[in-house]
Amino acid sequence: MLSSDQYLDIIENAIENIDYPAHPSGLYQPIKYALETGGKRIRPMLTLAACDALGVDVNVAVDQALAIEMFHNFTLLHDDVMDKAEVRRGRPTVHQRWNEQTAILSGDAMLTMSQMMASRCAVEKLPSVLALFNKTAMEVYEGQQYDMDFEHRKSVSAENYMEMIRLKTSVLIGCAVRMGALMAGADENTQQAFYDYGEKLGLAFQLRDDYLDTFGDPTIFGKAIGGDIVNDKKTWLLITAMSEDRSGTIEKWLGNQSDKSGKIEAVTGVYRFLKLDERCSELVNRYCDEAVAQLNRINLSVEAREFFVELAMKSRARSN
Amino acid sequence: MLSSDQYLDIIENAIENIDYPAHPSGLYQPIKYALETGGKRIRPMLTLAACDALGVDVNVAVDQALAIEMFHNFTLLHDDVMDKAEVRRGRPTVHQRWNEQTAILSGDAMLTMSQMMASRCAVEKLPSVLALFNKTAMEVYEGQQYDMDFEHRKSVSAENYMEMIRLKTSVLIGCAVRMGALMAGADENTQQAFYDYGEKLGLAFQLRDDYLDTFGDPTIFGKAIGGDIVNDKKTWLLITAMSEDRSGTIEKWLGNQSDKSGKIEAVTGVYRFLKLDERCSELVNRYCDEAVAQLNRINLSVEAREFFVELAMKSRARSN
Repeated sequence: MLSSDQYLDIIENAIENIDYPAHPSGLYQPIKYALETGGKRIRPMLTLAACDALGVDVNVAVDQALAIEMFHNFTLLHDDVMDKAEVRRGRPTVHQRWNEQTAILSGDAMLTMSQMMASRCAVEKLPSVLALFNKTAMEVYEGQQYDMDFEHRKSVSAENYMEMIRLKTSVLIGCAVRMGALMAGADENTQQAFYDYGEKLGLAFQLRDDYLDTFGDPTIFGKAIGGDIVNDKKTWLLITAMSEDRSGTIEKWLGNQSDKSGKIEAVTGVYRFLKLDERCSELVNRYCDEAVAQLNRINLSVEAREFFVELAMKSRARSN
Repeated sequence: MLSSDQYLDIIENAIENIDYPAHPSGLYQPIKYALETGGKRIRPMLTLAACDALGVDVNVAVDQALAIEMFHNFTLLHDDVMDKAEVRRGRPTVHQRWNEQTAILSGDAMLTMSQMMASRCAVEKLPSVLALFNKTAMEVYEGQQYDMDFEHRKSVSAENYMEMIRLKTSVLIGCAVRMGALMAGADENTQQAFYDYGEKLGLAFQLRDDYLDTFGDPTIFGKAIGGDIVNDKKTWLLITAMSEDRSGTIEKWLGNQSDKSGKIEAVTGVYRFLKLDERCSELVNRYCDEAVAQLNRINLSVEAREFFVELAMKSRARSN
C-alpha cells in the first residue's frame, strides 16, 4: 500500500496535467480554478486506496478517481450558485469571481468532462463504470433536491434527514471506493462491501460536519461557528431539537436573523441541554463502526485494513 | 424508409414512455415538462432517418435519438436561465414556472440522463457512441461561451459568427445524423458524410432563423418579429450591417431600448438597403446545397436520398 500522501501526489499531479483547450478561456479557466482550489481529495484518494488494497497498480484507476473528483467539484460549483454562496475554501466562488452564467456553463462542461474521464477504461469495464457513475450522479441530484425541499418543509424527521445526506453526500463516497475495487477487477461482493464502507463513512463524515459547525473550535475548523444555526439549516441537531425542545427556545429563534450571536448562544444552549453534542458524537461513532465492520467482508492485508480503519478513526475525531 | 410522421410517432412515444422516479417530484417534473414541450424533434428524427436510410431497423437507434433530444432540451433549459428568458415554445420557462435552483438542478439531471440513454447500446459500439456524444457536448458549451463572449465584444467578424453557430447549433445536428449511421454500423466515411450533411444543414437552419427573426411573417413565425434587432443580438445580419453601413444608422440605434418599433424599422431599412435579406437567403441556399452535396458520398437508395434532399429544401424555404 502507498501512503495517503503518495495518493495525494498522484491525484494533484493528474489534476495539474489535465489538458484544457486554450479557447474559449471563459469556459475553461473557471474549471481549472474550481478544481485546483483544493479540498481534502478524500474521494479520489479512496478510489486509489481501494484499488491498491486489492493489489492492483493504482494507475488503472487514476482516470476514474479524477472523474469522481471532477464530478464532486461540479456539484459544489452548481450548489454554490443555487445557495448564492460567496466563498468556497477561502476563495470567491466561481459565480462571484466571474458570473452566474459562467458558473452554470462551466459546471455543465465539468459534468461532461467527468463522464469523458470515467470512460477512459477497457471496453469490457465500460458498462459497469458508467452504470455506477451515472446512478450515483442521479442520487446526488435527488439528495440536493431533498435538501432544497427540506428548507421549505415545516417538519422533517431524522430519518428523512439521514436519507437526504446519504443521497447528497454518502453515495458519492461509496461510489469512489467501489470504483477503485471495480477498476481492480474485484468481484461483486467485494465491490459492494467497499461501497457500503464508503457509504457509512460518508454518513459519519456529514454528521461530524454538522457537529463541528456548532461545537467545533473556530481556530481549527476554518470557518465561523454557528452558520447552520443562524441560517436555520435543518441539520440532525436542529431536527432533533425541534422535536424534543419543550422550552420553546428553538421555536422562538427560528427565522430570527437580527441577533445572530444571541441566537447561536441560545440554540447551542438547548442542544447542550438535550445532550445533542454527545448524542451526535455517538451517532458518528456508530456509523464509523458500521463502516469498519464492512471491511470484514473483504479479504484484505493487515496493512490495507489498517488504512481504511484509520481513515474511519480519523473521520470520527476530525476537527476540520 | 418510414415517413417523417412515422419517425415522429416513434420519438413521441419513446418520450412518453420515459420512466421517471416518483420522488423527488421537484427534480423530475421539470424534466418531463421541458421534454414534453415539443419542438420540431428534428435531431432525433435525423438519427432515425440516417439509420433507416442504411437499411437498419430504426429501433436500434431510438435510445440514442432520445439521448440527443434530451441533451438538446437540457441546453435550452440552462440557456434560458443564462439568458433570463421567460417563454419557451409558448410556455413559461422552467426557471419561471419553478425557480432558478430547480432549473439548474433538473438540467444537470437531464445531462446525466442523456448520457445514460446514449449508453444503452451494444458494448462494442459504446466507446464510439460516447466519444461522439461527449465531444459534441463540449463543442456546444464552447459555442454557448462564444455567444456570451460576443455580447460584450465590440467587433465580431462574420467568420467568428459562423464558427460560433457551427459549435452552438450545427455540431449537434451533425452528431444526430452521424449517430444514426453509427448505430446502423456504417463505415467511418459514411458516418462522416452524414455528419457533414447535418453540420451544413445546421448552419442553413440557424441563418434561416436569423433571417426569419427580422424578415419573417409574424403570423406564421410564431413569435414577435424584430427581437434580435431590439436586443442588439449579434446575428449575421447585424454583424454584416455593422461593417458595411456608412449611414451611421446602425451605430445610432445600438443600445437604444426605448423606441423599439422605431429601431426595428430603421435597422430593417438598413438591412434592406444593403440587400442583406437577399444575401442571407443566398447564404442559406449555399449551405443547403453544400449539405445536399455530401449525400453523393453515401450509397443511398433514391427514396432515402430524396428524404434528406427534401429536408434541406424545406429548411431553405421554411417560414417557422
